[in-house]
Amino acid sequence: MSRPIITLTTDFGQADGYAGAMKGIILSICPEAILVDISHEIQPQAVRQAAYVLSTVTPHFPAGTVHLVVVDPGVGSDRRPIAVRTGRAIYVAPDNGVLSLALAADPPQLAVQLYADQPISATFHGRDLFAPAAARLACGIELAKIGEPISSDGLVTLSNLSAQRQPDGSWIGQILHVDRFGNLISDIECPMTDDQSPDCRSWVAVWVGKERITGVIRTYSDVAPGELVAYVGSSGHLEIAVRDGSAATRLGVGVGDAVRVEGLP
Amino acid sequence: MSRPIITLTTDFGQADGYAGAMKGIILSICPEAILVDISHEIQPQAVRQAAYVLSTVTPHFPAGTVHLVVVDPGVGSDRRPIAVRTGRAIYVAPDNGVLSLALAADPPQLAVQLYADQPISATFHGRDLFAPAAARLACGIELAKIGEPISSDGLVTLSNLSAQRQPDGSWIGQILHVDRFGNLISDIECPMTDDQSPDCRSWVAVWVGKERITGVIRTYSDVAPGELVAYVGSSGHLEIAVRDGSAATRLGVGVGDAVRVEGLP
Amino acid sequence: MSRPIITLTTDFGQADGYAGAMKGIILSICPEAILVDISHEIQPQAVRQAAYVLSTVTPHFPAGTVHLVVVDPGVGSDRRPIAVRTGRAIYVAPDNGVLSLALAADPPQLAVQLYADQPISATFHGRDLFAPAAARLACGIELAKIGEPISSDGLVTLSNLSAQRQPDGSWIGQILHVDRFGNLISDIECPMTDDQSPDCRSWVAVWVGKERITGVIRTYSDVAPGELVAYVGSSGHLEIAVRDGSAATRLGVGVGDAVRVEGLP
Repeated sequence: MSRPIITLTTDFGQADGYAGAMKGIILSICPEAILVDISHEIQPQAVRQAAYVLSTVTPHFPAGTVHLVVVDPGVGSDRRPIAVRTGRAIYVAPDNGVLSLALAADPPQLAVQLYADQPISATFHGRDLFAPAAARLACGIELAKIGEPISSDGLVTLSNLSAQRQPDGSWIGQILHVDRFGNLISDIECPMTDDQSPDCRSWVAVWVGKERITGVIRTYSDVAPGELVAYVGSSGHLEIAVRDGSAATRLGVGVGDAVRVEGLP
Repeated sequence: MSRPIITLTTDFGQADGYAGAMKGIILSICPEAILVDISHEIQPQAVRQAAYVLSTVTPHFPAGTVHLVVVDPGVGSDRRPIAVRTGRAIYVAPDNGVLSLALAADPPQLAVQLYADQPISATFHGRDLFAPAAARLACGIELAKIGEPISSDGLVTLSNLSAQRQPDGSWIGQILHVDRFGNLISDIECPMTDDQSPDCRSWVAVWVGKERITGVIRTYSDVAPGELVAYVGSSGHLEIAVRDGSAATRLGVGVGDAVRVEGLP
Repeated sequence: MSRPIITLTTDFGQADGYAGAMKGIILSICPEAILVDISHEIQPQAVRQAAYVLSTVTPHFPAGTVHLVVVDPGVGSDRRPIAVRTGRAIYVAPDNGVLSLALAADPPQLAVQLYADQPISATFHGRDLFAPAAARLACGIELAKIGEPISSDGLVTLSNLSAQRQPDGSWIGQILHVDRFGNLISDIECPMTDDQSPDCRSWVAVWVGKERITGVIRTYSDVAPGELVAYVGSSGHLEIAVRDGSAATRLGVGVGDAVRVEGLP
């Protein structure tokens, strides 16, 4: 039987011992767990960024993987600590919307509010509540043993996560994430599968910042170094990039800024 | 039988291959070791910071874990390379005080000065001396086989690691660490267990930089965003934070700066 | 039998989910793989830096290790995706020279151009092509099963990777890498083993930036804090450092800048 996998996505950074303390707890409870860091470099309290990054990795992990996500500006408040089982995975996180995108693609089958059955600190639920829960789940404990069932319809969902199609056939969205290369990743997706979906082959131009980019190409290596381009990236989202450079720096554009796609009506 | 764990705490950063070379050596000697990065982002040569970070994680790892710590400004000098066995763990590090806080909580049972039984570089004992020692210990070799016993009383200890109680009942300490969120972590601890301990419920105010903070609260989520607060953090230390912001930036305060607690006499 | 090791060296950074997605793919295909991060902090598209960092770690890993290297400015172009088997290891990378230094020390026995036997994205071959190949190789699939044999003589090689001896007995080289401590690592190696090799004990001075450094010493701990020194570092290369400081900052010198060694004729 293969060993259980626990992924970790946090805003703890890598200089402090926060992620390390969680790993110690996990290995104490479930020594056979394989720990995989997704990111500890989510911007502090950036729930939306974490939601995006998580959604780009979850489809690639084996069934049964436990995804532990601790981006938790509400730690110590009454926001709920939750675990959610889907058809493919188990998620452990604060109920603040950080699972929104992952669960949109991989719907909940069962959700629980985690019990706090021992004294826990008021500032580090990652160590005292979420890590132990993830470890128990990875080692085979049932969700119902570690939390109280709750309705998955009532889970907090981030608003404005998907671009909107306009009456004139254009799409208006926003930048969801800026990656290390300065690529701007938008919430405009292609292909989508239902009738309302944009057909990105018909997109004629992309507006971002003060720039109009003509057409959507296959990839940045199709253009010369320094050139600005739009293409559909590896997560299925419309991206804007500068070949061998940073679109974020060139355009002065960042997370939350608007993007518009002109399509055929 | 569960697999041995080796944690790594260094100031090597993550861009160079230094940590990777150590891991190659370890896996060559002890292939079943589970490697857990605590931090490679300790500030260069920051022995005191490393001592603090290490002390926050060691209590959370299973008994028998090997903690490998390479923050080593004296590499190539005559500072001693050591390994220390305690009731819970084994530590491998240069003898420069980096183990001070961890060993204060988990006292030494046996200490050895590592043999250098092969040619080693003058600049990278992490790879040539400490990593091989950690790997051998993780795979069950006895301390006495890889080093010469030394007195644990003679190990280098950092000075000024604990806050001092003043005659008027106040406590004077210093900032030990600034974490990724800009939280200021002091060397004033609560609760302590002996009669000399402060009772942090009686603390009436905290002075740091030019600010006076009234009272010690439970956690930052008890106040409004942007508010400055003092509370006892997850490591049992008095911390100063700004909710959803950085106390370090707001106050212009950093490692080594003074903190004072006004208590009841 | 011991578990297969896959190392990862990329320019993906650690904030995005790119490395995490690759790990999910690998563990889906080869669950028993041990994943070891070498660096995800290679500067974007810095093939030469990656080549250097890789070459410093590969000698320290067990025989049979798979080294996965994704620094790939040409992704989506017609640069070849390759896998190379040597006497000690297997390498998986784009054919852009990033393996130059590693293969100089550990010559190819068999090279293949990877098949793309499923639809792959145009921007993320790390996830869609290189990671699956590395996983299959780690789990025992033969190179010839996943790619078309190609001549290893035709692999792309970086130019100017080795310093040149001058008629007057001096050596002229360049800075190959600046590490986290600000140490300047040159392409001048010592000792080399053939007759053309410099004898670094006879080196009388090192020129870098506007500075002349007299002599090559054993290590920086032989001098006072703040002093500028030259020595042969842990990778066998001539390095320039400031004890407890940064030579890169002090001298304003970086990757690609010239270094000259005055030797005896």
